[in-house]
Amino acid sequence: MDFVCELLGMSANVPTDICFSFSELIERGGRTGPHKDGWGIGFYENKGFRSFIDPQPCCDSELARLIKDYPIKSHIVISHIRQANSGAVSLQNTHPFSRELWGRHWCYAHNGQLKEFEQLALCPAEQHAFQPVGETDSEHAFCWIMSEIAKIGPEEATSCDFAHKLKPKLDHLRSFGVFNMLLTDSVYLYAYCTTKLSWITRRAPFGEARLRDVELQVDFSSETTPNDVVTVIATEPLTDDERWTTMEEGELVVFRQGEMVCQVK
Amino acid sequence: MDFVCELLGMSANVPTDICFSFSELIERGGRTGPHKDGWGIGFYENKGFRSFIDPQPCCDSELARLIKDYPIKSHIVISHIRQANSGAVSLQNTHPFSRELWGRHWCYAHNGQLKEFEQLALCPAEQHAFQPVGETDSEHAFCWIMSEIAKIGPEEATSCDFAHKLKPKLDHLRSFGVFNMLLTDSVYLYAYCTTKLSWITRRAPFGEARLRDVELQVDFSSETTPNDVVTVIATEPLTDDERWTTMEEGELVVFRQGEMVCQVK
Repeated sequence: MDFVCELLGMSANVPTDICFSFSELIERGGRTGPHKDGWGIGFYENKGFRSFIDPQPCCDSELARLIKDYPIKSHIVISHIRQANSGAVSLQNTHPFSRELWGRHWCYAHNGQLKEFEQLALCPAEQHAFQPVGETDSEHAFCWIMSEIAKIGPEEATSCDFAHKLKPKLDHLRSFGVFNMLLTDSVYLYAYCTTKLSWITRRAPFGEARLRDVELQVDFSSETTPNDVVTVIATEPLTDDERWTTMEEGELVVFRQGEMVCQVK
Repeated sequence: MDFVCELLGMSANVPTDICFSFSELIERGGRTGPHKDGWGIGFYENKGFRSFIDPQPCCDSELARLIKDYPIKSHIVISHIRQANSGAVSLQNTHPFSRELWGRHWCYAHNGQLKEFEQLALCPAEQHAFQPVGETDSEHAFCWIMSEIAKIGPEEATSCDFAHKLKPKLDHLRSFGVFNMLLTDSVYLYAYCTTKLSWITRRAPFGEARLRDVELQVDFSSETTPNDVVTVIATEPLTDDERWTTMEEGELVVFRQGEMVCQVK
């Protein structure tokens, strides 16, 4: 396995416990993978947003252990484990990043590397624009994409039209290198692939799912109701015994309430 | 005691453990005070920002207990315990609020009530402006003040000139009701008073300080170096045996690295 930064996203139609998939990701955070330079998780309760981020290796982090036991119930989650390749190991460089636009908290995480990302012009700091706090290619690209989204305007945000307008912007970022991304505005979850991103939609009744890296089985059926729909998106499939959809290069998929609502190739 | 929302701020010249003062605030979060509608703490590691927020009563919160034991070392902290008077009890209405401007994370908490706060005009959502996510007077006022700060511009941010330009904006908010506020851009900590806000600057060597509400004494001298300077700002003095400075109505005080650097009355 040669994972670089691990991404994990979830979209569900009811607030869903993320512990299952996150416990796998924690294992990879320095134990079975090389992701020793921080981790983070962002999630929502309605419009409210919370994140836990830590520049400590995930598998050694006190905070990660807390969250492993802490029941995070959310309809949208974005999580990231980092191997630093641009920017120092520090809190301001730890994903996921978030910004407010149109009265919504947007949350984003990136896997990959963008060369010469400084060429992505951001508005002057004198203006009220999105500016990076840290030094990473990832946050720079996030600020650029948020500025582009602000130009698209909120009137498109409820339709597939928005995704079609967003896609060429993401393609532009891909021209700088590897850009695997998860992005959400608290309602929609956008997944964009350059090299690797897979997803699966699970519907009740859920069976047992076996995690790849750790000896653990979870019976979803004991924790869910008959109408539950949950989509999980990850850098690589997290389970062996389920069929995951592997995304293509340049593909954008949009999820809402656990369902895939738009796919732009 | 008739505390409404409790504020607690800290500015220090070295990353300082906030546990001492926070343990007092937790006591007031539903046990000795009426603040049962959520709590939050925001803090920095260099430019990096983290917050823990919870709509649960502080004294019952699993997260609050974690943080009580978790060594938060920071040079700037803003904490808040809420008694809801505007907006429902929910995550999006829980202080402190934060926004990015000029590549810095700004963090803010408010104590008081603002009447007819909707009259504070925010820019249209179509533009990239600061917009509230929740429904509180506090977050509305925060978005308004951030827009005003954006107009002042970053070239003033390193001097007392900025505070003099900020003060009339805060006075304007005070004309809507009670506006006690803590605000920071990760370097400066701004404290603005309408009815109650007190502060104290502690310098090494620190003696013992006795908390008001809980039976606990901490000997600061065991945890600090000879050059440490720490200012604590709170709704009311947290200790009985130290001399706190009580702020006047309409007064703005600015702290940096634990020292008061500007006072505008």
